[in-house]
Amino acid sequence: MHLLISLSVCLLLAVTAVAQKPHPCQSPPLMVGRASVIYPKGETYVSERFTYDALGKRIRVRMQGVEHNHSFYEDVLMLFRESVVYQISYRNKTCTKKPFKVPFQPIEIPQNATFQAQIILGSSSGPGLGLLVNNWMGEIPEQKVKFSTTFTEFGCIPVSTLYISDKDGWLISSFFDILVGIEDPQDFIPPDFCDTTKPVDNEQVVTDFFEALKKNSFSNN
Amino acid sequence: MHLLISLSVCLLLAVTAVAQKPHPCQSPPLMVGRASVIYPKGETYVSERFTYDALGKRIRVRMQGVEHNHSFYEDVLMLFRESVVYQISYRNKTCTKKPFKVPFQPIEIPQNATFQAQIILGSSSGPGLGLLVNNWMGEIPEQKVKFSTTFTEFGCIPVSTLYISDKDGWLISSFFDILVGIEDPQDFIPPDFCDTTKPVDNEQVVTDFFEALKKNSFSNN
Repeated sequence: MHLLISLSVCLLLAVTAVAQKPHPCQSPPLMVGRASVIYPKGETYVSERFTYDALGKRIRVRMQGVEHNHSFYEDVLMLFRESVVYQISYRNKTCTKKPFKVPFQPIEIPQNATFQAQIILGSSSGPGLGLLVNNWMGEIPEQKVKFSTTFTEFGCIPVSTLYISDKDGWLISSFFDILVGIEDPQDFIPPDFCDTTKPVDNEQVVTDFFEALKKNSFSNN
Repeated sequence: MHLLISLSVCLLLAVTAVAQKPHPCQSPPLMVGRASVIYPKGETYVSERFTYDALGKRIRVRMQGVEHNHSFYEDVLMLFRESVVYQISYRNKTCTKKPFKVPFQPIEIPQNATFQAQIILGSSSGPGLGLLVNNWMGEIPEQKVKFSTTFTEFGCIPVSTLYISDKDGWLISSFFDILVGIEDPQDFIPPDFCDTTKPVDNEQVVTDFFEALKKNSFSNN
């Protein structure tokens, strides 16, 4: 009888352990937050505020950066469903609209990523001292990129991602100050001085997410 | 009367704001945890478990590392009060004892560091989703090193430090899985096969903390 109880407890623990192994997860569909990005090989540093809507497939990014000791500012609205990207300058009251042929990529741990480790940032010795996070590794074969990414165990909130590319070196992005939800839905509406009805120039199509964020991808800078 | 109340509330808020600005803090004197260290320029990667006693000025570090694609293992006991360092190999039952002329440096935010920012790793949108941390910057002029360090707001637990040296490039250390307290006080007692009575060879004096951790600083490797 004791053996049976021990066995059933062991089986139960084994099942619980399997169930407790982290699985790839998707972040909340609505988020605002900040990120800092360093790429490639530390030559460019970008600090950004983002508004993210995975339901409407829209991202607004306002970023300040330093590239080879030159600072820059960008304000970009990516509308994936409409396949357009706007680069907005409130100071100059200008707006550049371009076709945007990039599939929307939700913030998530890819299904083919491999679970590496569960760790506590800080300490679990008291409340508010630590954060339970999971680290995952994987590859994006079509881009020849390896990544190591860390998300919180509870809530699937992104914490950091390291991309290593044979071609471009490494890129580190760190996320912080994230809130679940959208602070200002206006973030996804182009300002009045944007001529949204203007047809886009199909010769200037943007096909890469990071290209859309790059300083020199818009001609009116 | 309303003006007086408003004024006193404003003054109270101002005082609270001053009081709430983070001040340099010292980590708990007894800690166990893990750290990963990458240096210099990403050529060496070390993963370590440490036991830290700021009261007795003792540190035990067990580390596994990869340097230029070669893996190594080190087990080092630093006794700052006795000014000796032991390198221990349980596999070979060997122990190297060396004089150790390094002042004990507690884990803390140096008093001359400048507060940079308070951020939340993860999110504050729910319990267990985020960790409140403070970032500090500073310099160690005698070593020509700049640093950026992050500690938790509550508990003063180290999270990460980036050192930038003109001479040696950069070094990143990340701390995690930290517990307040000492798991095993035996960690600070040299094992039986260490001849603790043996006089140290003063020609082999170790004068640098990182030198003590270096793979080739002990002759019997």
